[in-house]
Amino acid sequence: MLGATGIIPREDSERLIQGLRDVLSDVEAGRIEFRLHDEDVHMNVERILSERIGKEIAGKLHTARSRNDQVALDMHLFVLDQCGRTIDLLRTLQAAFLNRAEVYSSVIIPGYTHLQRAQPVLFAHHLLAYFWMLQRDIDRLQSCRRRADLSPLGAGAIAGTTFPIDRQMVATELGFSGIYPNSMDAVSDRDFVIDMLMANALIAGHLSRFCEEVVIWMSSEFSFIRLSDAFCTGSSMMPQKKNPDLAELVRGKTGRVYGSLMTMLTVLKGVPLTYNKDFQEDKECLFDSVDTVQQSLFHLAGMVAKLTVDGKSVQRATVSGFLNATDVADYMVRKGVPFREAHEAVGGLVGYCLEQDKPLEHLTLEEFRQFGAVFEADIYEHLKLETVVGRRNSAGGTSPAAVKLQFTQARETLAQTEAWLDQNKFRLFEE
Amino acid sequence: MLGATGIIPREDSERLIQGLRDVLSDVEAGRIEFRLHDEDVHMNVERILSERIGKEIAGKLHTARSRNDQVALDMHLFVLDQCGRTIDLLRTLQAAFLNRAEVYSSVIIPGYTHLQRAQPVLFAHHLLAYFWMLQRDIDRLQSCRRRADLSPLGAGAIAGTTFPIDRQMVATELGFSGIYPNSMDAVSDRDFVIDMLMANALIAGHLSRFCEEVVIWMSSEFSFIRLSDAFCTGSSMMPQKKNPDLAELVRGKTGRVYGSLMTMLTVLKGVPLTYNKDFQEDKECLFDSVDTVQQSLFHLAGMVAKLTVDGKSVQRATVSGFLNATDVADYMVRKGVPFREAHEAVGGLVGYCLEQDKPLEHLTLEEFRQFGAVFEADIYEHLKLETVVGRRNSAGGTSPAAVKLQFTQARETLAQTEAWLDQNKFRLFEE
Amino acid sequence: MLGATGIIPREDSERLIQGLRDVLSDVEAGRIEFRLHDEDVHMNVERILSERIGKEIAGKLHTARSRNDQVALDMHLFVLDQCGRTIDLLRTLQAAFLNRAEVYSSVIIPGYTHLQRAQPVLFAHHLLAYFWMLQRDIDRLQSCRRRADLSPLGAGAIAGTTFPIDRQMVATELGFSGIYPNSMDAVSDRDFVIDMLMANALIAGHLSRFCEEVVIWMSSEFSFIRLSDAFCTGSSMMPQKKNPDLAELVRGKTGRVYGSLMTMLTVLKGVPLTYNKDFQEDKECLFDSVDTVQQSLFHLAGMVAKLTVDGKSVQRATVSGFLNATDVADYMVRKGVPFREAHEAVGGLVGYCLEQDKPLEHLTLEEFRQFGAVFEADIYEHLKLETVVGRRNSAGGTSPAAVKLQFTQARETLAQTEAWLDQNKFRLFEE
Amino acid sequence: MLGATGIIPREDSERLIQGLRDVLSDVEAGRIEFRLHDEDVHMNVERILSERIGKEIAGKLHTARSRNDQVALDMHLFVLDQCGRTIDLLRTLQAAFLNRAEVYSSVIIPGYTHLQRAQPVLFAHHLLAYFWMLQRDIDRLQSCRRRADLSPLGAGAIAGTTFPIDRQMVATELGFSGIYPNSMDAVSDRDFVIDMLMANALIAGHLSRFCEEVVIWMSSEFSFIRLSDAFCTGSSMMPQKKNPDLAELVRGKTGRVYGSLMTMLTVLKGVPLTYNKDFQEDKECLFDSVDTVQQSLFHLAGMVAKLTVDGKSVQRATVSGFLNATDVADYMVRKGVPFREAHEAVGGLVGYCLEQDKPLEHLTLEEFRQFGAVFEADIYEHLKLETVVGRRNSAGGTSPAAVKLQFTQARETLAQTEAWLDQNKFRLFEE
Repeated sequence: MLGATGIIPREDSERLIQGLRDVLSDVEAGRIEFRLHDEDVHMNVERILSERIGKEIAGKLHTARSRNDQVALDMHLFVLDQCGRTIDLLRTLQAAFLNRAEVYSSVIIPGYTHLQRAQPVLFAHHLLAYFWMLQRDIDRLQSCRRRADLSPLGAGAIAGTTFPIDRQMVATELGFSGIYPNSMDAVSDRDFVIDMLMANALIAGHLSRFCEEVVIWMSSEFSFIRLSDAFCTGSSMMPQKKNPDLAELVRGKTGRVYGSLMTMLTVLKGVPLTYNKDFQEDKECLFDSVDTVQQSLFHLAGMVAKLTVDGKSVQRATVSGFLNATDVADYMVRKGVPFREAHEAVGGLVGYCLEQDKPLEHLTLEEFRQFGAVFEADIYEHLKLETVVGRRNSAGGTSPAAVKLQFTQARETLAQTEAWLDQNKFRLFEE
Repeated sequence: MLGATGIIPREDSERLIQGLRDVLSDVEAGRIEFRLHDEDVHMNVERILSERIGKEIAGKLHTARSRNDQVALDMHLFVLDQCGRTIDLLRTLQAAFLNRAEVYSSVIIPGYTHLQRAQPVLFAHHLLAYFWMLQRDIDRLQSCRRRADLSPLGAGAIAGTTFPIDRQMVATELGFSGIYPNSMDAVSDRDFVIDMLMANALIAGHLSRFCEEVVIWMSSEFSFIRLSDAFCTGSSMMPQKKNPDLAELVRGKTGRVYGSLMTMLTVLKGVPLTYNKDFQEDKECLFDSVDTVQQSLFHLAGMVAKLTVDGKSVQRATVSGFLNATDVADYMVRKGVPFREAHEAVGGLVGYCLEQDKPLEHLTLEEFRQFGAVFEADIYEHLKLETVVGRRNSAGGTSPAAVKLQFTQARETLAQTEAWLDQNKFRLFEE
Repeated sequence: MLGATGIIPREDSERLIQGLRDVLSDVEAGRIEFRLHDEDVHMNVERILSERIGKEIAGKLHTARSRNDQVALDMHLFVLDQCGRTIDLLRTLQAAFLNRAEVYSSVIIPGYTHLQRAQPVLFAHHLLAYFWMLQRDIDRLQSCRRRADLSPLGAGAIAGTTFPIDRQMVATELGFSGIYPNSMDAVSDRDFVIDMLMANALIAGHLSRFCEEVVIWMSSEFSFIRLSDAFCTGSSMMPQKKNPDLAELVRGKTGRVYGSLMTMLTVLKGVPLTYNKDFQEDKECLFDSVDTVQQSLFHLAGMVAKLTVDGKSVQRATVSGFLNATDVADYMVRKGVPFREAHEAVGGLVGYCLEQDKPLEHLTLEEFRQFGAVFEADIYEHLKLETVVGRRNSAGGTSPAAVKLQFTQARETLAQTEAWLDQNKFRLFEE
Repeated sequence: MLGATGIIPREDSERLIQGLRDVLSDVEAGRIEFRLHDEDVHMNVERILSERIGKEIAGKLHTARSRNDQVALDMHLFVLDQCGRTIDLLRTLQAAFLNRAEVYSSVIIPGYTHLQRAQPVLFAHHLLAYFWMLQRDIDRLQSCRRRADLSPLGAGAIAGTTFPIDRQMVATELGFSGIYPNSMDAVSDRDFVIDMLMANALIAGHLSRFCEEVVIWMSSEFSFIRLSDAFCTGSSMMPQKKNPDLAELVRGKTGRVYGSLMTMLTVLKGVPLTYNKDFQEDKECLFDSVDTVQQSLFHLAGMVAKLTVDGKSVQRATVSGFLNATDVADYMVRKGVPFREAHEAVGGLVGYCLEQDKPLEHLTLEEFRQFGAVFEADIYEHLKLETVVGRRNSAGGTSPAAVKLQFTQARETLAQTEAWLDQNKFRLFEE
């Protein structure tokens, strides 16, 4: 840009560009060692450049720039890049959920509210709930990336520059969609950092919910699932024992991801315009949050991909628990019994079953009829878990047909994310 | 919908609708008293409806619904509505900033980094930095609203419903763009609440920065601005004294807005699917956050609208502080002095001025020439603050021309927000 | 004090005191209505006093005081009082835990790490873990109370007062142990508020852990305990179903208690000396935190007091899970088998049991001997859960003897707290 | 202990102790390299020990221990040690404040409320406000240390151990005052970590207040103080410019210290007993919080020690601002004018001064008398800042006499802390 606008001679700009490309490839090849006392990466690069192409031309590199807009730029590029990478990992975890849902598409488990068995649902339906949660996380990161997609370069230290620069050209070269309209805002804005910390906090919240379920499902009492040994620690003495370490760790790491958000919100509080040294604190919390969330997603994707269901335990759980009690009431209402009356009858039936220690479907027709004259032989078909599940056929419901539709929606959604990733990948220095 | 799909007879649905409309107008007219022991608003409405149109038909109101999807719906409608209202208030505060910027479009103040005077900027430029901050807040709330714009109704308690409902029809009637694809997600999702708490937290962060500046500007030492008495407390004995109460209060209230976000993130942490009673805690923190932010915006808009600049103090601040020192170096470079040499010369000049206790522009030409032969009479024009400011003419810079362009961009932006507000206003029960 | 030091005439001070006592008894009798437009409680009291004993004398009430030290005083008195009340409630909950521990002193449950069954423990031992957690909360509140136990009165607005007041006398009258040594610190200090918010946050954290356990124990899969209906919501249709509402609510309320702490920490951040209006935000977060924690403690104490153990489910859980596997290794080691060898043998044994689907204690002696020659008939006694538990007899261990000692320690601790409460109760205006 | 109780032979225990001492001195001499794949420090030590004294005896090291109680022990030792170190640094910063207060014991500055000039105070008085804040921090850390002062060793994995260990003996050897009374609590307790994070958060809050003041005082508009170059960044071109980098950085770092507290509170939330892998997250947040706070204290102590006052600027600030207006009212009241009347008269006087642009003390006696007949020549003495300050002679007030008393109290307090530090220093492995 400096060459194109004539701020420095074309030849100089070309030598600068060539020099920087050489430095970059040496960096990538591991041939360059940065020095701590050069303060930051920019100073290191400029020093190395000076050693190679001479101080006079290398000195022009910093023309019309300031540390303030440069540091802001680096953080923007980092956020743009990491939004994409995190979305990619979210997509991978979604794909793992979808895969498990498809593999276990006919398994019925108890659906829980208050950790109490409520109604039978497809295991696939339960897993897909996470698919859609993560989709909102993707959307949030896409919004975050869009808002971060403005170049601060050219803002100078605070007030713009006296050189006739072309900010839009630089922005386009760097892959930005636009430029900050106000130089003071450009150097003192860290919203995009907080935006990403927020998106990460909600991802961590979601993962903590799933991990909690994994820990519960892995307890001897539930035993709903089995995990690959790679994600657990065991005991050679007690081979049945498996601590779901990864799930616990990720649940615990929610803390640091929330903490990083609080860090940066606190930094922002009450700090006047424009740049203040306080903002130097934006780096570690962002890096830690990004690393933590990305690693959590990566390893959970691996864990989910190999998660298997313990069919026997799951089935045992669906048999007891009166998951079909609601449907007995439905049955009676459809046969003309007023709702409140049906409701009471079912209360009596369940109480009777508890006394007898057997599930509803094991009652004889006579036992049923003690609680209502409308019961007929079709009640047994009506009470089968498959029937119960199949009847919840409203849009987004748990019936196999409704869930099949979700599969299709989920696959389309994955494809859209892939297309977005193709369009928004980090373009800097890519040919 | 229940009538349209034949789940209940048309006549019944019409009597329900008419009954509900009557209840609504009585509520709006203040003729209805809710009872605490009816537990929540739905139960109250159903009770009143029963008293009016009879238990039998009123009892059909709850067909194919559950408390779980109903409560989720209420929160969605609240968030959709409040996003719009908050955006409207953000727009009002933006307009106030723009107005002050236009009124004081030629006032120059010191631009600060590290609360140290750095370079002269237009006061208008400084104020507009807040305009663009708030614009990101608007964008964030628009994203939040878009993600919240899915109807959970029809998810039932957890698994969908056995009735042949039309979820999309209900969603459209209620003004939603779509429906949740998964019933379990629909009843256990509170992301949209957290989304709004996050957007609010960043608004509060922004306001805290501005309020900090107001407090500093109102100190005797700065005295840059004057506020209307309505937003301060004074002292009859010391009429010169004005505590910038509103600014301090809003700065302090950042705490509760951040706190509300932390509240809900904590609630979410580690809670298994689906609905858990913990989620009842989503209400107070959201209501408090929304109220706090909206009232802060409302009152600050009033305060900014009447804010006046103390021209004398501002001018005094720009005279000292060597805000034009950078431009002396520029001057020398343009006359051929190598950058580093120019830089050193200016260091000498400023040191000399400090000794003599006078600003650069009061030096004689001879004094200038002690530090460099290139100085000529045009240096005085070059050092005028107006010239210094005018030279920072890069896009987004502080020159009057660049700031004028910002005015235009800002006005267009306001118009776009207004158009968005027209399209997205809360449509429920509006004719 | 004003009378005693001669700042105002004795007669005036006596009339003020008598007037204030009258106002107080009228307030306590509900005969006084405060007016909002009188701004705060002090202004209301002064107005009422003026109406009763005349403006001239009532006007002397405020001599040598300022709003700043007065408001600080109120908050101090509130914290001193509430520390005591919260400690009293913590003690009540401790007593409930101790009582349940004593009632179920011989019940064995699986002890969990990673929510995996690890070793058998007494249910009493598990409950007492909470006793000691709460004891640290009591200690923390006692520290908090001690640090808050300084009177700010006499600090004036910021710099002290020109009247010859006796601050120590006032402090003693109000029940304080001492006075703030620095007037600027006295009016700008809100540490004692944050101290209490911190103590509350850790209480809430502890309660969230216990509530999580209650929710898990109440699941059908665990079924370890039963709760009184008063603390659950049920379903008339599904009488077996009980949502542990209170436990979920208290777990959820952890959010707001953490949030209140974050609120006040944010308020404090970066605010210069001395009093700033921001500090007005100290009230709602403190009141809400105190109310939430006190109500949580109160209701949980009720819930714990009536909690019963489902002996059958608990026993079933201890039989499977190989809780005694560690003790087989111990057995072998004591009979001379090297540790590592014993360890491997047990791994083989457990694997064999898993194949055969039976617990270790159901193996025949021959089966045992396939894995080691040292097994003899005494292995069966050695493997009994009671023996296993009893052997963990180290100080603080789970053996009945060690737990009995804990009972004694716990009872002594309760007595100490009671003694502390007697000494530190809120003494203001008590005769 | 293992030897003393006969759990292992005396000779073995002696060889273990000697072996460990050798390893320790090699570690201290930098002769030992830990291996990552040995998992943690204990495994490394045990491996090295095995290589040196043989597997058989080294294997006995872990007798009657578990990873769970061992890790808890390490964290306890760390907290005990770091409480002392942080207290030592707090004391150093207090001493620096006290020194500056003594050096500038006669300098008068405006005392601020709402960042508005309120009443004149001694600069020493202002600085000592921080002395007492930090003293509360010391007290808080002492409480924290006292609560952390219980040994968890002997709790085993969860339930205690079957070996006849002597927990109290081990505790005493390690420098603890007592032992955990409950093994389950011992392995799942991280309160002491949160306790220290809380104490650190309040320290950070205090430092952020002081740093904010430094930033404000360093602005050109205030210019109250000068800092040594070591704690600022300057500009060779603008030698007058000094960015108070350290103060800004420490203010910013409040964020991460608050964030670390939120991290660990979140980790704790809703995690059942006993040990869960989540707790592994206790380390990084604690280490970061401790390092950040200690380094902040260390560098601030250096900065404060060299802080100088810009007498001219400070004096200019005390002349304007009507800091003595309250004392004019006092003067009139003492001469018999009713309070309200005096108050109004002063309002008139200040208004008149504002019009005339001069301070109260520059009015002629005639001008004074236009607002009240009681004024006499002694008003000028009465209005001198020294007199005004001297009159605020109540305990803890700003008069030189009262502040002198504070000096004495402060010195005594420092001596008490030193005595405490001597008694509570980290005793492990010290001869």
